Amino acid sequence: MDKEPLVYLNGEMMPASKAHIAIYDASVVLGATVTDLERTFRHSIFKLEEHIERFYRSCKYARLKPPVKLEHTKQIIEELVEYNTQWLDQDKELACIQFISPGEFKIYAGAAGAPGGGLEPTYCIHTFPLPFSVWKHYFLEGVHVITPSTRHIPPQCLDPKIKCRSRMHWWLADQETQLVDPKAVALCLDLEGNVTETSGSNFLILRDGEIWTPTTRNILHGISMHYVKELAEKSGFEFRERDFQVYDVINAEEAFLASTPYCLAPVTQINGIPIGEGKPGPVFEKLITLWSEKVGLDIKEQILNSTL
Amino acid sequence: MDKEPLVYLNGEMMPASKAHIAIYDASVVLGATVTDLERTFRHSIFKLEEHIERFYRSCKYARLKPPVKLEHTKQIIEELVEYNTQWLDQDKELACIQFISPGEFKIYAGAAGAPGGGLEPTYCIHTFPLPFSVWKHYFLEGVHVITPSTRHIPPQCLDPKIKCRSRMHWWLADQETQLVDPKAVALCLDLEGNVTETSGSNFLILRDGEIWTPTTRNILHGISMHYVKELAEKSGFEFRERDFQVYDVINAEEAFLASTPYCLAPVTQINGIPIGEGKPGPVFEKLITLWSEKVGLDIKEQILNSTL
Amino acid sequence: MDKEPLVYLNGEMMPASKAHIAIYDASVVLGATVTDLERTFRHSIFKLEEHIERFYRSCKYARLKPPVKLEHTKQIIEELVEYNTQWLDQDKELACIQFISPGEFKIYAGAAGAPGGGLEPTYCIHTFPLPFSVWKHYFLEGVHVITPSTRHIPPQCLDPKIKCRSRMHWWLADQETQLVDPKAVALCLDLEGNVTETSGSNFLILRDGEIWTPTTRNILHGISMHYVKELAEKSGFEFRERDFQVYDVINAEEAFLASTPYCLAPVTQINGIPIGEGKPGPVFEKLITLWSEKVGLDIKEQILNSTL
Amino acid sequence: MDKEPLVYLNGEMMPASKAHIAIYDASVVLGATVTDLERTFRHSIFKLEEHIERFYRSCKYARLKPPVKLEHTKQIIEELVEYNTQWLDQDKELACIQFISPGEFKIYAGAAGAPGGGLEPTYCIHTFPLPFSVWKHYFLEGVHVITPSTRHIPPQCLDPKIKCRSRMHWWLADQETQLVDPKAVALCLDLEGNVTETSGSNFLILRDGEIWTPTTRNILHGISMHYVKELAEKSGFEFRERDFQVYDVINAEEAFLASTPYCLAPVTQINGIPIGEGKPGPVFEKLITLWSEKVGLDIKEQILNSTL
Amino acid sequence: MDKEPLVYLNGEMMPASKAHIAIYDASVVLGATVTDLERTFRHSIFKLEEHIERFYRSCKYARLKPPVKLEHTKQIIEELVEYNTQWLDQDKELACIQFISPGEFKIYAGAAGAPGGGLEPTYCIHTFPLPFSVWKHYFLEGVHVITPSTRHIPPQCLDPKIKCRSRMHWWLADQETQLVDPKAVALCLDLEGNVTETSGSNFLILRDGEIWTPTTRNILHGISMHYVKELAEKSGFEFRERDFQVYDVINAEEAFLASTPYCLAPVTQINGIPIGEGKPGPVFEKLITLWSEKVGLDIKEQILNSTL
Amino acid sequence: MDKEPLVYLNGEMMPASKAHIAIYDASVVLGATVTDLERTFRHSIFKLEEHIERFYRSCKYARLKPPVKLEHTKQIIEELVEYNTQWLDQDKELACIQFISPGEFKIYAGAAGAPGGGLEPTYCIHTFPLPFSVWKHYFLEGVHVITPSTRHIPPQCLDPKIKCRSRMHWWLADQETQLVDPKAVALCLDLEGNVTETSGSNFLILRDGEIWTPTTRNILHGISMHYVKELAEKSGFEFRERDFQVYDVINAEEAFLASTPYCLAPVTQINGIPIGEGKPGPVFEKLITLWSEKVGLDIKEQILNSTL
Repeated sequence: MDKEPLVYLNGEMMPASKAHIAIYDASVVLGATVTDLERTFRHSIFKLEEHIERFYRSCKYARLKPPVKLEHTKQIIEELVEYNTQWLDQDKELACIQFISPGEFKIYAGAAGAPGGGLEPTYCIHTFPLPFSVWKHYFLEGVHVITPSTRHIPPQCLDPKIKCRSRMHWWLADQETQLVDPKAVALCLDLEGNVTETSGSNFLILRDGEIWTPTTRNILHGISMHYVKELAEKSGFEFRERDFQVYDVINAEEAFLASTPYCLAPVTQINGIPIGEGKPGPVFEKLITLWSEKVGLDIKEQILNSTL
Repeated sequence: MDKEPLVYLNGEMMPASKAHIAIYDASVVLGATVTDLERTFRHSIFKLEEHIERFYRSCKYARLKPPVKLEHTKQIIEELVEYNTQWLDQDKELACIQFISPGEFKIYAGAAGAPGGGLEPTYCIHTFPLPFSVWKHYFLEGVHVITPSTRHIPPQCLDPKIKCRSRMHWWLADQETQLVDPKAVALCLDLEGNVTETSGSNFLILRDGEIWTPTTRNILHGISMHYVKELAEKSGFEFRERDFQVYDVINAEEAFLASTPYCLAPVTQINGIPIGEGKPGPVFEKLITLWSEKVGLDIKEQILNSTL
Repeated sequence: MDKEPLVYLNGEMMPASKAHIAIYDASVVLGATVTDLERTFRHSIFKLEEHIERFYRSCKYARLKPPVKLEHTKQIIEELVEYNTQWLDQDKELACIQFISPGEFKIYAGAAGAPGGGLEPTYCIHTFPLPFSVWKHYFLEGVHVITPSTRHIPPQCLDPKIKCRSRMHWWLADQETQLVDPKAVALCLDLEGNVTETSGSNFLILRDGEIWTPTTRNILHGISMHYVKELAEKSGFEFRERDFQVYDVINAEEAFLASTPYCLAPVTQINGIPIGEGKPGPVFEKLITLWSEKVGLDIKEQILNSTL
Repeated sequence: MDKEPLVYLNGEMMPASKAHIAIYDASVVLGATVTDLERTFRHSIFKLEEHIERFYRSCKYARLKPPVKLEHTKQIIEELVEYNTQWLDQDKELACIQFISPGEFKIYAGAAGAPGGGLEPTYCIHTFPLPFSVWKHYFLEGVHVITPSTRHIPPQCLDPKIKCRSRMHWWLADQETQLVDPKAVALCLDLEGNVTETSGSNFLILRDGEIWTPTTRNILHGISMHYVKELAEKSGFEFRERDFQVYDVINAEEAFLASTPYCLAPVTQINGIPIGEGKPGPVFEKLITLWSEKVGLDIKEQILNSTL
Repeated sequence: MDKEPLVYLNGEMMPASKAHIAIYDASVVLGATVTDLERTFRHSIFKLEEHIERFYRSCKYARLKPPVKLEHTKQIIEELVEYNTQWLDQDKELACIQFISPGEFKIYAGAAGAPGGGLEPTYCIHTFPLPFSVWKHYFLEGVHVITPSTRHIPPQCLDPKIKCRSRMHWWLADQETQLVDPKAVALCLDLEGNVTETSGSNFLILRDGEIWTPTTRNILHGISMHYVKELAEKSGFEFRERDFQVYDVINAEEAFLASTPYCLAPVTQINGIPIGEGKPGPVFEKLITLWSEKVGLDIKEQILNSTL
Repeated sequence: MDKEPLVYLNGEMMPASKAHIAIYDASVVLGATVTDLERTFRHSIFKLEEHIERFYRSCKYARLKPPVKLEHTKQIIEELVEYNTQWLDQDKELACIQFISPGEFKIYAGAAGAPGGGLEPTYCIHTFPLPFSVWKHYFLEGVHVITPSTRHIPPQCLDPKIKCRSRMHWWLADQETQLVDPKAVALCLDLEGNVTETSGSNFLILRDGEIWTPTTRNILHGISMHYVKELAEKSGFEFRERDFQVYDVINAEEAFLASTPYCLAPVTQINGIPIGEGKPGPVFEKLITLWSEKVGLDIKEQILNSTL
C-alpha cells in the first residue's frame, strides 16, 4: 500500500504489514520487554530526548542492550515519524513506540542450543495515530478512578520505575475496576496502602494548595508528570513528592492523570466519591492551557474534536 | 516445506513459518498472556487432562475466555502432536504449548475505537522438540540454585498459581543469579523470606526423611510436583506442603526440581553450599526410576543421550 | 406495653424502651465493646455454652471483666429468651446479644476524676427477632462477594479472633463493595493477600473435594463454622484450615458463608466471576439439610417463607 | 434542672439527661462513628473552623453525610457553648464534641427491612467541662510514654487520619502500657516500627534543634500539632514531618504531646529512659508561653490550679 | 588450682583461668558466633548427639567450618564433662557449651593483610555448673512472660533456627520486659504478630487439649521442645506446630517454656493476665514427671533444693 | 615489649598483650556490645566529639551505662592515641575503638546468683594501625557492590542507627556476596527493597546532579557521611536523604562509600553493572580532594602508597 506506515524492526525499515513477532520471541514468551512511548504535537515529537534516555535507563536495569546507540535510536524515530506523518491529517498526531526484548528463543523453533544461549535482542520502533476519541470523556466528565483489591508490584520484585511489558497485574486491576464502572481506571495501592499510579498514567492531586505526586519509589518517572511539575512551579504551586493515601485523594481539591498521549486529564471521582467539586477544576484548566500554549495547539480541543 | 510442523492460531492450522504475532497483540504489549505446557513420552502426551484443566483455571482467574471449549482444546492438542511427531525421531519428544492473550489492540494499527473495546482473544497452540541437551548437566552434576535479591511477586499483586507470561521479574532473577554461576538457576524467596520456586520448576527438598514443597500460596501448582507426590507417597515418604527457608535447604538430605520438560532433577548446591552429599542422592534415583517405569523409558538416559 | 421485650442492663431487667446507652459510655466513645450473639431454633437457643465461652474469652483478651459469672450470664440469657419468645410467632426466632464496654466515662458528664478511673463495665443482654427476609436472596441467587481494596486488620493491631465492635473498617469495606453491587458482601483480604472473612460471617470453600477455611489467625473462630466442620466430617469431607487466595475461590467447586443468624449460605460469585456452576451446589444442600435435621426445622424454608 | 447543659441530638436541643443512644445505634453496634472535639479558652472556642473542616473530611472518607451543612454545625456548636458556659466558673473551660454514626439499626428493635436499609445518621453535639486535674502531673513530672507490643492500625485497613471511634486497639494499647506504670501513655509504633501517636494526642520531638512529627501517613492531622508548627516556626525552629523511631526519641532533646484539651505537654520518659534532662525543657516552656499569650491565659497555670 | 575445670580452646585443653578471647576475635567484634549447649543429668549428658548435630547445622548455615569433625567434637565434650564433674557434688549438674567464631582479625593486632583474609576459626568448648537457683521461682510461681514492643528478627535477615550469638535484640527485649516485672521473661512476636520464643527457651501452650508450638519458621528447633513432643504424644496429647497469637496464649489452659538447662517450666501469666488457673497445671506436672522418670531424678526437686 | 601499644580495659591501662575478654563476657555470649571507632589524620583524631557522642547515644538506646563520663572517655582516647602513635611511622594512622558490653556473666564461671544480676559493664578502648592496603583496590578500580538475598535488620528488631556488634547478618551477607566476586561488598536492601548500607560504610549516590543517601531510618548516622554532606553542600551539590532502590544506583552518575577508615571511596559497579562510566568519577575526585585539603594530607595517596 502506498500510504502504509513504516516500522523499524531488527535493523530494517519495513511496511507495517510485514512487521511480526515470532511466537517464540521473549516478548511473547516472557513479557520481558522494555518499552517507551512519545507523541507529536503538530507532527513534531515532544521531549524525545527525555523519552529515549528513560528508555535506555530501563534497558540498563533489565540488562537488555539495544543494538544501536541512543543517538541512532533518536534518528530512527525522527525518520519514522517524518515518513509516517506525511499522509496524516493536520489535526491528528502520532505516538511512537520503541521496544526491546531479549530476542527469539530459537530452541522453540527446533534449533539446538541452550534456551537463553546467544540471544539477539528484538528491537522494534513503530508509530500509530493517537486515538483521541478514547479520552474524550476524560475531558467532559473527568476520569473516575477506583482502587482495586489488586496491589501494585513492589520494587524489590520488579521496579515500577522501568517501563516494561510484564503487565498482567494491570490487566487484572483494570478488569476488576471495571466491575464498578466500565469507564473507570484502576488506581493501584502499594503493599503499604499508598496511592501509586494507573496502568497508563501518573496520578497527582492538589491538596492544601500544593501539587502532590506519590514518591517515585513506586511509580514510573513520568515525563508528562515532570512537565506538570515544571508548569506547576511556574504557576506558583509547590510540587511535592510524598506518600499519600485514599483519604488524601477523597479530600483533595483536584486530581489529575498525567500521561504522554493526552498530557493531563482531570480526575473527578475516586471510589464513587466526588473529588473537590466533582468536575474539572481551575488548576487543571490553568495547567492544560499553559501546556497548550507551549505546544502551539489546544490540547483539550484537539481531543474533543477528534474523529479518531 | 513437507516436514514443517503445524501451529494452531486463532482457529486455523497453519505451517509454523506462517504463525506470527502482531506487534499490537496484548501478548506483546502487556504480557497479559496465560499459558500451559505439556510433553510427550514415546510420542504420547502425559497428563494432558491435568494440564488443560490448569490452563482453564488460569484463564478464569485472568478473565480470558478461550474461544473453544476445554474438550476442543484437548482435541486440537492431540491432532497437533500426532501430526508434528510423524517425522520425529523415536528418541525425541515434543513439548506442546497453548497460550491465550486478550487479543490485538487494533487501535495501534490505526483502527478507531477504545483500546480494549471488542478485543478477540489470540489463541495459539504449538509444539517444539524438547531440547534435552540443555538439561544434561542437571543429571551429571546436579542443579545449582542461587537465591537472588529479587523477590517473588506476591499473590495479592499477581498470583503465582497462574501460569502467565508477565515474567520480567524471572528474567531479572535469572540474570542476577548468573553472576555467581552461568549455569545456576534462580530460586526466589517471597517477601517473607520463604523459598518459592524457580523460573521454570517447582522446588522440593528431602528433610528429616520427608519430602517438603513450599506452600502452594506462592507457587505454581505443578503437575510434575503433584506426580512426585504420588510417587513419593507410594515409596513411603511423607509429603508435606509447608513454608521453609534457606536454612532448611542447606540442611536438607536432598533437593529436587520438578518440571514438565525434564520431570525431576537433583539439586546439589544452594548458594555455593553442597546439599547433602553434594551429588544426586538415592531418593532422587528412586523417584526418577519409578517415573521412568511408569512412562516406559529411561528419562535420565533419554536426556543424557540426546543430541538435541 | 404488655408485649414489650425485656432487656438486661447493668444488673436490671427492664422493658426495651427503657434501655439506653449514655453518650459518654465507652461503647459509644471508643467502640471498646466486646460482644457475642446466639440464636434460637424453635425458640430454644443453639450452642449457648459455646457462645458464652467465646464471649468470656473475648472479654479476657480485652481486659473487660463481666460483672457476673459465666453461669449467671447463661441463666440471664435463658430467662430473657424465654420471656421474649412468649408472644413470638412459631415461625419466628430470636437472636440474643450480650455486650460489655468499660463503662461510662462520667468525666464527660462533668464528674471529677481521671477519665478511666473507677470505671464500672456496662453490661447488656437483649434480644431481637431474626429478620429472615434480609437473607432470602442468599438462598435464591446465592451470595455475591467482592474483595475490596480495604484490608482486614492484622492480629498485632486488634485480633479478629475477638468479637468486638470497633468495626469502622468493615463499614468502609462494605460501602466500597456496594459500589459494584448493592447486595454484594465484602470479603476482606489480609495484608498478605489471604482471604479472611466477611463483616458478619466466616467464609469457606469446597476445593478439590475438601472444605477449606482460612487459618484462624485472621478470623473469628465461628461457632457455625465449627458446626459446619462437624457436619462436613460426618459427611466424609476433609475439613482443612489453611491460607488461600482469590485464585482458589475463583476455582472452587462451591463456597459458603457460615454465620449464626442464617447458619450457612451458598456463595455463587466472587468479583463478578461465577464459582462452580454459579448457583447453590449439592454440598451446600447436603450440609444445610443435615443442619436442618439436627435442629428440627427446614432452615432454608424458614428463611424463604419469612415475612419479617 | 436549671443549670443542666444542653445537648444537640438529631436535630433537637435537649437537656443532657435526656440525651441517650439506642442500644441498636451503629455507634454502639459498629463503632462506625466519626467525631471531633474542640475546646474553649476564656469560654470562647479555639480554631473552630479547623475542627469542623476536619470533621467533615473524616465524614467524607467514612461516607457519612451530616444532616446539616458545615455552617450550620458551626452555629449549633456556638449556641451550645454559649448556653453551656453561662453557669461555668471563669477558670473552667468547655470541650465540645460532635459525632455522627450511620444511625439506628431499627431491625434490632424488631422493625422489618434490611439491616442497613434507610439508615438515618445519628448526629450529636455535646459539651463537658475540661477535667484539668487529669493532666496536672503532665506538667509537674512530664508524661511518661511506653511503646506497647500492640501496633497502630495501618491506613489500608482504617486510616488514622480520620478521627473515629473504633478504638479498641487503643484501649488494648493503653491497658498494656499501664502494666509498666499506671500513669503512662501508650505511644504506638506502626507495622514498620515507626513512632506514630498516642490514643489522644500527637507526639513530637526536638531533635538536633529541629521539631519532628511522624509523617502524617500514620496519624491524625492534629490541629494542636499544626498550631505547634506555627509557633515553632515563629520561634525559629525548623519543623519537619518525617519517619522516626524509638532511638530518636531516646536521644531527643525534648518531646511533647499536642492535644486539644491540654494543648501541649512535656514528655520526659520513654520506656523508662529519661528524654533529655528527664524534665520539662526550655523549648516546651517557650511554646506553651507563646500559646498562652495567644489565648490570653496561662495554660499551664489553669491546669495546675484546677480543682476539676 | 587443683579443682579448676578444663576448657577446650583452639585444639588445646587448658585450665579455665587460662581461656581468654582476644579483643579482636570475630566473636567479640561481630558476634558472628555459632553455639550450642547441652546439660547433664546425674552427671551424664542428655541428647548429646542431637545437640552436636544441630550445632553443625548452624555452622553450615553460617559458613563456619569447625576445625574438628562431629565425632571428635563429641569426644571432646565427653572428656571435658567427665573431667569437670569429678569434684562436682552429686546434686549439681553441668552445662556444656561449644562455640565457634570466624576467628581473630589479626589486622586489629597490627598484622598486615585483608580483614577477613586467612581467618582461622576460634573454637571453644567449656562447662559450668547449672545455677539452678536462678529458676526456682519458675517452679514456685510459674514464669511470667511479657510481649515487648521489640520484634523477633525475621529469617530473611538472620534465621532464628540457628543458635547464634548476635543477640542484642534479645538483650533489648528482656530489658524492656523487665520494666513491667524484673522477673518477667520477654516473649517476642514476629513481624506479623505471631508468638515466637523467649531469649532462652521455646514457648508452648496447651490449647483445646492439644499442645501447640509456634511454626519452626521463626524459632530455634529446640531439643527440649522436641522431647516435650515425644512425651506429650506418649501421654495422648496431639502436638501441633502452628502460628498462634497472644489471644491464644491468654486463653490457653496452660503454657510452658522448654529449655535445656531447666527442661520444662510452667508459664502462669502473659502481660499480667493469668493463663488457665494462673498456677502450674496438671499437664505440666505430668510432663515433668515423665521427664524426671526418664532421667532418673526429680527435675523440679533438684532445682528447688539447689543452693547454687 | 617496649613498643607495645596500650589498651584501656575496665579502668586500667595495660599492654595490648594483656587485654583479654572472658569467654563468659556478654560481648562473647550475646554480642550485646555497643561500639564506635574514630581515626587519626597526621596522628590526630578526626571528629572525636561526634564519635563519642554517637557512642553515648548508642549506649543509651542499649541501656548500657559507660562507667566513665563522656568527657573522661574523650580523655582516655586522647591519651591512648598519643601514647600509641609515638612509635608509629609518619605515613601510618591509627584507628581507635571503644566498646562496652553488659559485662561478665560470672555464673558461667561457677559463681552463684542470677545470670544478669549485678553485672558490671566491660569497657574497653584500644587502637590499631589502619591497614590501608586493604582498600587500595577501592581507589584503583572502585568498589563493586552486590545486593545479597539477605535483608537488613529492621529498626523494630534492632535499630541500625546504633553501632553494635550483633552482626551475624552482615557476616552472612558478605559471605553470600563473595560468591559473585571475592572483593565485592554486600549492599543490603531493607525489607521493602530500599538500599541501605554496607557492613562497614554508608552508601551514597550522585543522581540527577544531587547526592542521595538512604533515609536514616535504616542506617548508621555516619559521621563520614555527614562530613560528605558538608563538603557536598559547600561544592554546590544538593544533598538529599531519601528512599531509593537498585534502579537508582544502576542509573546513578556516581556512587560512593563513606566510612571512617578510608573516608570516601568510589563505587563503580552494582550487581555487575557499571555505574556511570564504570570508573571513579569527577565528583568523587572533588570531594576527596576537599577532604584531603581539610586534613592536610592526600587521603587517596596515603592509602595507595601504604605498605600496611
